[in-house]
Amino acid sequence: MPTNERVTVGDVGERRLIQRFQRLITKSPKALLKGSEDAAAVEYDGQVIVANTDMLVASTDILPSMTSEEISWKAGVMGLSDLAAKGAIPLGILVSFGFPKEVEKDYVEALVIGLNYVCRKHDTYYLGGDTNQCAELVINCTAIGTSHPEQLLHRSGAKPGDIVAVTGKFGYTGALFKIVLERRIASKRLVNRIRSKALFPQARLKEGHILASTGVASASIDSSDGLAWSLHELALASKVGFQIDQLPIPQTCIKFAEQHKLDVHELALYGGEEYELVVTIPQSQWNTATQVVQRTGGQLLRIGSVTKESENILTIDSKERKIEPRGYEHFK
Amino acid sequence: MPTNERVTVGDVGERRLIQRFQRLITKSPKALLKGSEDAAAVEYDGQVIVANTDMLVASTDILPSMTSEEISWKAGVMGLSDLAAKGAIPLGILVSFGFPKEVEKDYVEALVIGLNYVCRKHDTYYLGGDTNQCAELVINCTAIGTSHPEQLLHRSGAKPGDIVAVTGKFGYTGALFKIVLERRIASKRLVNRIRSKALFPQARLKEGHILASTGVASASIDSSDGLAWSLHELALASKVGFQIDQLPIPQTCIKFAEQHKLDVHELALYGGEEYELVVTIPQSQWNTATQVVQRTGGQLLRIGSVTKESENILTIDSKERKIEPRGYEHFK
Repeated sequence: MPTNERVTVGDVGERRLIQRFQRLITKSPKALLKGSEDAAAVEYDGQVIVANTDMLVASTDILPSMTSEEISWKAGVMGLSDLAAKGAIPLGILVSFGFPKEVEKDYVEALVIGLNYVCRKHDTYYLGGDTNQCAELVINCTAIGTSHPEQLLHRSGAKPGDIVAVTGKFGYTGALFKIVLERRIASKRLVNRIRSKALFPQARLKEGHILASTGVASASIDSSDGLAWSLHELALASKVGFQIDQLPIPQTCIKFAEQHKLDVHELALYGGEEYELVVTIPQSQWNTATQVVQRTGGQLLRIGSVTKESENILTIDSKERKIEPRGYEHFK
Repeated sequence: MPTNERVTVGDVGERRLIQRFQRLITKSPKALLKGSEDAAAVEYDGQVIVANTDMLVASTDILPSMTSEEISWKAGVMGLSDLAAKGAIPLGILVSFGFPKEVEKDYVEALVIGLNYVCRKHDTYYLGGDTNQCAELVINCTAIGTSHPEQLLHRSGAKPGDIVAVTGKFGYTGALFKIVLERRIASKRLVNRIRSKALFPQARLKEGHILASTGVASASIDSSDGLAWSLHELALASKVGFQIDQLPIPQTCIKFAEQHKLDVHELALYGGEEYELVVTIPQSQWNTATQVVQRTGGQLLRIGSVTKESENILTIDSKERKIEPRGYEHFK
């Protein structure tokens, strides 16, 4: 990075920029989450209001072939998933649009219908918003929810010995990026399955909330920046490491990886935008945790355990590899 | 507007687009504000959470000469002012940024410092946010606050006979637009005064909250789209009209208008982005209303009264004129 020169945000990168922002901001005395977190949480009258804002920008966040329905789904789930990671129950979302004036009215209405749909599919509501002219399509989604001070899930509570678990399988988005961005060939059936799984993920609100309200999770994050990056962030916030010994990967993705001689663990670790929760559970709570999550219709899949080390290691078939702290970053 | 053709958002315009959106969205059963409103309000556990999201886009919302401090102030006040109009107390703001990767790090940090500053100057906090790459500078500010079900101010409660009042004077932004966009000349002293008043308005949070909590206001809106447009919206929501017989205009603006042979009432009515509250007060509550607002350090200035007509009329020096429903609109 050049010094004594004009330093751009491109030189610095999103993550260092955000760290810098955190030092410039006066912390609210009622804020309950410290450091880098999925959402903000503020105490109010014995309750907690949890909120998160996420901007989806066409040029960096939308794959070339995405339909309006897929775009809306992504914008909605991005926001709701962060509430899920904190165990909050959503009250609804607020949406600001920016679009060029040449955009068709029908397209914009389809986006609104899609946002309403993703809300209703998550038992919540599209509360309102704002519309603006902009050089490119921008959808900013703010999700607002509620929690209780003693139930809020943090990134920082993982303890050595805890079990690391996820709420679903990984690999669909990694595979989709290969198909769309690298033009990898697959059967229509395989592509359709990967596409629908990758582009219509569920925000794990029920799972997050039941884990929070039963008090069985020691830490939680969503995997919107990829499983590897989520593990890195959880490890950093909790000052621990992870020993991962299995990755739940769908058969479809294993098949796709075999066909293209791709490392399927690479697809699962570094894909991103999966929106599964990555949680840590004390061993004594594991049975309860799996049961309560199953009761919501969800699943909790053990992938490894928390260690005292400062590294995250994946061991599969006795082969050890480092899980690198990489995932999608803006301006890079 | 063309039919059977590709209809763009530019053909439709922002206001009709928003009306259309409202019909496409499933209303939350806990939502307390109906129709076009300054913010969304949702009941939760006997309380009300009030939130508003506003996108500021460089190409349409930022005057060519604006500094980072002025831009941040505007982004923050835009959001907080909508809470003020509902009588809510802010918990804080969430901010999403979009900027081109060539933007300087120092500039972006100045924006963050400015947003923190506008929050602290309004007794609230910058709670967190998101950072993204975008074709142009975008600042999306979501303001979140709280209220009580019986205290929430609506746009729809104005009754014939009520007094119409505002929390400050109008004309600075109208004058500034003339200076910046039409290159009208004025003394440096006059320009500086107009600029500082136009670009550093206060969100009228104390005024809004005291009017709401004492229950003396029958309707409320902020004047971010201009006084004329705010009166139009209030009239529409309350199914009334307004007879305006005085406009509080600062001497500085009167002087500027005289120098340039401009209609000073035009400056005051159609400027926009003044962020004063426009409220209606039953006559029996007027004395209380002015007293409680004064106690917060603010002022309530009578500008006219509510009528049964469907028109908004300005009568100054026995000369009647229609107040036109115009103000800034995106895509037009």
